[in-house]
Amino acid sequence: MFQILSIKNGLDNVQGFFSDSYNVGLRTKKNDDGSLDGDVAFIRSNEPCDVVARFTTNRFAAAPIKHFQRYDEGFQTNFILINAKNANAMTGAKGIEDIDILFDKLKIKTNLHNPIMSSTGVIGYRLPIHKLANAFDNFDFDAKHSEKTARAIMTTDSFKKEICFKITLDDGNSFHIAAIAKGAGMINPAMATMLCFIITDADIPRDDMDELLGIAVESSFNRISVDGDTSTNDTVLLLANKTSGAYDKDAFKEALKKITFELAMMILRDGEGATKVVAFEVNGATNDEEAKKASILLSNSLLVKTALFGEDPNWGRIASTIGASGIECDEDKLVIYYDNLLIYSGEQRELDKEREEKAYKIMKQDSFKITCNLGLGNGSYTCYGCDLSYDYVKINAEYRT
Amino acid sequence: MFQILSIKNGLDNVQGFFSDSYNVGLRTKKNDDGSLDGDVAFIRSNEPCDVVARFTTNRFAAAPIKHFQRYDEGFQTNFILINAKNANAMTGAKGIEDIDILFDKLKIKTNLHNPIMSSTGVIGYRLPIHKLANAFDNFDFDAKHSEKTARAIMTTDSFKKEICFKITLDDGNSFHIAAIAKGAGMINPAMATMLCFIITDADIPRDDMDELLGIAVESSFNRISVDGDTSTNDTVLLLANKTSGAYDKDAFKEALKKITFELAMMILRDGEGATKVVAFEVNGATNDEEAKKASILLSNSLLVKTALFGEDPNWGRIASTIGASGIECDEDKLVIYYDNLLIYSGEQRELDKEREEKAYKIMKQDSFKITCNLGLGNGSYTCYGCDLSYDYVKINAEYRT
Repeated sequence: MFQILSIKNGLDNVQGFFSDSYNVGLRTKKNDDGSLDGDVAFIRSNEPCDVVARFTTNRFAAAPIKHFQRYDEGFQTNFILINAKNANAMTGAKGIEDIDILFDKLKIKTNLHNPIMSSTGVIGYRLPIHKLANAFDNFDFDAKHSEKTARAIMTTDSFKKEICFKITLDDGNSFHIAAIAKGAGMINPAMATMLCFIITDADIPRDDMDELLGIAVESSFNRISVDGDTSTNDTVLLLANKTSGAYDKDAFKEALKKITFELAMMILRDGEGATKVVAFEVNGATNDEEAKKASILLSNSLLVKTALFGEDPNWGRIASTIGASGIECDEDKLVIYYDNLLIYSGEQRELDKEREEKAYKIMKQDSFKITCNLGLGNGSYTCYGCDLSYDYVKINAEYRT
Repeated sequence: MFQILSIKNGLDNVQGFFSDSYNVGLRTKKNDDGSLDGDVAFIRSNEPCDVVARFTTNRFAAAPIKHFQRYDEGFQTNFILINAKNANAMTGAKGIEDIDILFDKLKIKTNLHNPIMSSTGVIGYRLPIHKLANAFDNFDFDAKHSEKTARAIMTTDSFKKEICFKITLDDGNSFHIAAIAKGAGMINPAMATMLCFIITDADIPRDDMDELLGIAVESSFNRISVDGDTSTNDTVLLLANKTSGAYDKDAFKEALKKITFELAMMILRDGEGATKVVAFEVNGATNDEEAKKASILLSNSLLVKTALFGEDPNWGRIASTIGASGIECDEDKLVIYYDNLLIYSGEQRELDKEREEKAYKIMKQDSFKITCNLGLGNGSYTCYGCDLSYDYVKINAEYRT
C-alpha cells in the first residue's frame, strides 16, 4: 500500500531539480497586479535523468521536437530550456540550428548534458536567439522557483498549472512527482496543444517510465478537446533523476495518472473562453473504437459546444452528432442522460417541462456529464470537452495583436 | 451549343409546377417590415414527376427521409409538402405515421400521387399535425408563389435562396431549372444541413437526372462547411415533369452545376454569423483523397475560422492544420498563397511587413482564396468555408429560445 498526498510548491519539492525564469522582452503584457511574468525558463537536474516523451502527431512538428529526436534512443539529459511567445515551428533546418546556437551560449554558464528545448507561441518566426540568450546571465541556476517557471510558460492560459504529489510507501520511504503545464486553446484528443514537464526523484526504471507515461497520457491529455485543433508543438516530458532511491510501480502509476488527469482538467477548465467542463461518456457501443469516435465528435461539435454555453438542454444536437459520427446506432435504442437525469430514450422522446427544468439546472453547473448509451454492445469511451463562448472567438480572432 | 440565362421569380417559371405557403403559427417571429413568413409550404406538379434525391449521411435520418425511402425505386410523385420549425427527427415510427396522417388529410384537398414530405427545425418533437393541417384549407393549389415558398422554408437563414435558369438550345427550344434552398448553420461537406428543391420542365431521362444530380451535389453542397456538423434532415430533391419537351444533356449538366454551386455559395454566405467566404484549394498533394482531407480540415478548423474573422494573416494556423490532417506533407516544399500573394514557402518563411499589409487587405474582402501547394504530386481539392464570429455563438447558444 501507499499514500499519495498533494503538496504545495510544485517542482520545488523534487530532490535535485532546480528551475527559474526570466523576462527577456518577448512577453510585454503585464498581469493585473502590475507584475510581468518571464518568457524564458529552465528546469535542470544535478544528476543526469532518464527521459521519456510524447509529442504531437502533427506532421509539421516544431524544431525543438526534431532537435530532441536527433538524440540517440535512451539518452539522458540534465536540462530543459523553455520559451513562450515563439513556437519555432515551420522554421526548417534553421530552426534546429538556432537551438544549437542557444545551447552553445548556455553551456558556458552551466553544465549541460544533452539539453532539450521546448517552445510555444506563434508559428513561423525564427527564434530571437540574442534576446533569449540574455536570460542566461540572469538565471539563478540553483533556484527552486517552480511558480515563476510555471508562469513563464503560459500563453493564452489564464492561470498557472502546477502540481506536486508526495508518495509515501509502506516502508516509510517516499518520492515526489511534480509537473507544470501550459495549455488553453487548440486542445484536441490525440494530444492537446500543450507543454507538460513532469519531474520525479523516484528510482523508476526507464522502461516503466515509458509504459506508465503512455498509460497516463492516454487517459488524460488524449481525452480532452477545446477546439479540435492539433498543434505543431505538443510535448509531454517525464524526467527521472532517481535521487530518492524509493519506487513502487503501482504507486507511481496511480500518482502519474492522477497528475496528468488533474492537469488535463485544469487545461480544459482554462479552455479559451470556456465556462464549463463536460464529460462525454459513450457506452453500449458495438466496440470501444466506435464509442471513441462518437465521444470525440461530441466533444468537438460546434453545435453541442454552443448549446452548452447557452445552457440549452437541446439533446437533439447530441443525438444528431452521434448519428453523424458514422458509427452503428439506432434511435429506438439510444438513451441519453445529463448526470443522472434521463433526457431521451426510445420510449420517452420529448422533454417535458419538468425534466427540461431539471436539465437546465444540471447545465448551469461548472461541470457535468452527458452519457449516451447506444444499447448495442459493451464498447465505451469518455472524452472531456468545454463549451464555446464569445470569448473563444475574441481570444482567437485577436491572438497575435 | 446552348444559352443559360438567369431569370427572376424562381420556381414560377417552370411549366406545370405550382407552389404556395401559409403560416399555421409555428413561426411567430416577424420580419423587420412587420410581415410574417409561412411555416408550411408545398411544391406540386400537374403531371407526375420523376424524382431523384440525395439525403444526409447521418444515421439518425429524420422521419420524412425514411418516409421517402419506403417508396419503390423509380417512383413518380406530384407533391412535396415542407414545414419549418420542426425537424420530425428522433421521433421513431410515430414520426413516419404522422406524415401518413397529414397526407390523408391533404388528399381530400388536392390530387396526391406518392407525396413527399420534407422538414427542418428542432429535433426531437412530434409534428403538430393538427396545426399543420390548417394550412391545407388556406393553400392556393394553383398558385405560383415561389418567393413566399422560398421564405417559408427558412430557419436561421437571413435571406431567401431562390434561383431559376432558362436554357435555350440551338434549335430554339428551351427548358427551365429552378430551385429554392434553405441552409445557414450546421453545414458540412458530405451534405450541408440544408433542404434544396430543384424542379425542371426539361424532358430529361431519369438516369440522367440521377447521374447529373450526383455530379452537381459533389461539386457544390458537398464542398461547403459552416460548422462541420451534419444534420438529420439534409435533403436535395430534383423533380422533372418533362412538360417542355426540350432537353440537352450538356446544357442540363452545366445549368444544374451552376444552380447548385450558386445556392451553395448563398448558403455559405448566409453561414450563421459569417462575414466572409473563403475557398480552400489544396493542390500538389500525393492524391486527390489527401488533398480533400486537408481541404476539409482547413474549412472546419476553429483556429483558421477565427483568424479569418479577425483578419489576421496568421498562416501558421493554415500550416498547422495541414500538418494535423495526417496527410503526407513537407514544410520545405509547402507553398501558401492568399489569392495571388505568396504568404509562405520554404525559402520565404517569415512574413515581412509589406506582404503582411497586402495579406491583410486580401483578408478584408468578402471572399478570397487560400491556396496550399504541397509540392508532392498532382492531387487537388477545393472546399469552401466561412469565418466564425461572435454572432455564430450567439445564434447557436440561443437557437431554441
